[in-house]
Amino acid sequence: MTLDALKFADRFDGISGSAIREIFKMIAKPGMISFAGGNPSPSALPDDLAAPIAKEVLEQNGKAILQYGATEGYPPFLESLRAYAEKSVGCPLPGILPVTGSTQAMDLLCKALINPGDTILVENPSFLGNLQCMRLYQANLVPVDSDEHGLMLDKLEEAMKTYHPKMLYVIPTFQNPTGKTLAEERRKPIAELAAKYGVVVAEDDPYRDLRYDGVPCRTIKSYDTEGWVVYLGSFSKVISPGMRVGYLAGDSRIVRKCTLGKQSSDLHTANLTQAIVDQFLRRNLLEPHIQEICKGYAEQLHAMLDDLAAFPAGTTFTRPEGGLFIWVELPEGIDTKPLLEKAVERHVAYVPGTHFYALGGHENTLRLNFSNSPVPVIHEGMGILKDLFTEAL
Amino acid sequence: MTLDALKFADRFDGISGSAIREIFKMIAKPGMISFAGGNPSPSALPDDLAAPIAKEVLEQNGKAILQYGATEGYPPFLESLRAYAEKSVGCPLPGILPVTGSTQAMDLLCKALINPGDTILVENPSFLGNLQCMRLYQANLVPVDSDEHGLMLDKLEEAMKTYHPKMLYVIPTFQNPTGKTLAEERRKPIAELAAKYGVVVAEDDPYRDLRYDGVPCRTIKSYDTEGWVVYLGSFSKVISPGMRVGYLAGDSRIVRKCTLGKQSSDLHTANLTQAIVDQFLRRNLLEPHIQEICKGYAEQLHAMLDDLAAFPAGTTFTRPEGGLFIWVELPEGIDTKPLLEKAVERHVAYVPGTHFYALGGHENTLRLNFSNSPVPVIHEGMGILKDLFTEAL
Repeated sequence: MTLDALKFADRFDGISGSAIREIFKMIAKPGMISFAGGNPSPSALPDDLAAPIAKEVLEQNGKAILQYGATEGYPPFLESLRAYAEKSVGCPLPGILPVTGSTQAMDLLCKALINPGDTILVENPSFLGNLQCMRLYQANLVPVDSDEHGLMLDKLEEAMKTYHPKMLYVIPTFQNPTGKTLAEERRKPIAELAAKYGVVVAEDDPYRDLRYDGVPCRTIKSYDTEGWVVYLGSFSKVISPGMRVGYLAGDSRIVRKCTLGKQSSDLHTANLTQAIVDQFLRRNLLEPHIQEICKGYAEQLHAMLDDLAAFPAGTTFTRPEGGLFIWVELPEGIDTKPLLEKAVERHVAYVPGTHFYALGGHENTLRLNFSNSPVPVIHEGMGILKDLFTEAL
Repeated sequence: MTLDALKFADRFDGISGSAIREIFKMIAKPGMISFAGGNPSPSALPDDLAAPIAKEVLEQNGKAILQYGATEGYPPFLESLRAYAEKSVGCPLPGILPVTGSTQAMDLLCKALINPGDTILVENPSFLGNLQCMRLYQANLVPVDSDEHGLMLDKLEEAMKTYHPKMLYVIPTFQNPTGKTLAEERRKPIAELAAKYGVVVAEDDPYRDLRYDGVPCRTIKSYDTEGWVVYLGSFSKVISPGMRVGYLAGDSRIVRKCTLGKQSSDLHTANLTQAIVDQFLRRNLLEPHIQEICKGYAEQLHAMLDDLAAFPAGTTFTRPEGGLFIWVELPEGIDTKPLLEKAVERHVAYVPGTHFYALGGHENTLRLNFSNSPVPVIHEGMGILKDLFTEAL
């Protein structure tokens, strides 16, 4: 019989692939100005540091690095990671697991916790890559509304009461896609609500160190007394996304279950990339590197915010204090999805906002990334978008 | 409420972790003679080649390697991999996907194909890591018997008729754990049975290049006319398991679905490890490296086979022509599981055979790995095991 007879697993029903990954392919042409991805600036990628480090770790510990490693992580990295993460998250982390990018952290958490039909509360909008992950676990996604200070506590408690969710997925700092930061005074209450209703909080915090303005907030995890909060950290935005090194931290029982899941997901994260990140931590290379890239990103952010002031009347946008994204709401009636094709014809790309909403809609929104384009290119691309959206009115 | 109230996902019911990974922890002491893992010999790990290569690829293409990559693979590697794999597998491979070790290939295939309750036919015994993967997808594992030439065709067809399986999982060459090779004349019929009954064959073939004797067989995939066979390849046994680079190849529709699954599993495999394997292929380093390691492994295999001749009367064992493992059946009544503790006390480790049987039993069997121990150490460890098993009679 031909392969046409093959039926794929039910979890793929309605799954068509990440819109961002598809847009990446569409815009992979020379001369494209991309505000679409979440890519670090090429100048922020430390190839000059990584090249000799890669050689050195292989020379010094090559037999261990090339051999099978423990699912629990490359031992030297596990040590430096714990010290780094406990300082960064601001509390002891009894369980911690290096993962193959924080994408894998989300996959393992869903594997550990989610039965088909379980409810996950998500921000509205939220990161579409992880929405797809949750959909592949056949979760029931219930969006919870935010205001300018992030998740609204009354809406959140109401949703917990109504839906008995298994998990809350939240990006508290410089959120993807909106750039918003969850207010400090809402963080402790979220940890408390999680314990009150028995809901695991997946606190996805990859942008935390990319702050250009304002005062850092404490993590939700640092307010967690019962272990319901799991912290997802990443080195993608501060060292390199191509290395695929992140971590998952929290109560040992949850981390242990994720470790079991990881055994049959990829056995362990590549030792070499763990060893390179380990050296960044041990040699104290991370902090000065972050300071340097933040300078450039701050300029890019402000350039893009300036350009947004010239967008059609009725446009609103966020003013993030860090991260990689600005969120734009155009006047009602403009649909950014069909307009993307026209933008790409003019060599500019963005992500239509509708993709970030668990239930769709909001066709007049878009996400803009500023980290991947130098300031003059930002001005050029934003000029083209301004014209395009003005014409579309 | 405390975290005691947390209920993990049903897929973990009865999952206690890979016995091998747990044994690894038990035996991580200095002076241990380990016949337990599937580790390449330290001398087979090319750290001297990998160290300068890692530096060079980061110097020459560091910005691309450190940036986000495509889920579909690092473009230069995708090119060299396809050429290598088509030659190795012996047929065109329209779809091919680099994965984070072939462990991930199995995970993605299950993700793409398996609904809870779907049947997967497995060899009896089979590789326990992948049995655990299938169990986490809540598959119904049905073992199919083998003789000395691998899977028995009449038993296989009977099982396909009876159970309407979604998948057959087979390790045709130097099988893990038995070291057996599926006879050439059974390979085409398996591809035909797959098409006749509409069953996906996962042909897991990581040991193929480690042949020390006899004539290579064709892959099952090379007999596949309809696309039902998916080939799982790995560089773990011939370059480095710690790099986590493998691939999955077959019909584009299946590979596309696995690619979608990979988007939310780990987004992409680390570009750096793909780039290093790419250089091994482009610089023609793989073939001479394989020839060199095969020489050493052949000696280790024969040393262990010689030692087995002195085991208690009634012991039978396989005589593999390659790979990493020998399978031993001790006289009835000896239970290798409780004896493992005693062996470890005497500083020798193996894996009790019962773990490799989907339905358990076969307590008098064990798997021995010879690649990780030099010949004198093999003699020492096998002497200890011989004494232990003789005492246990």
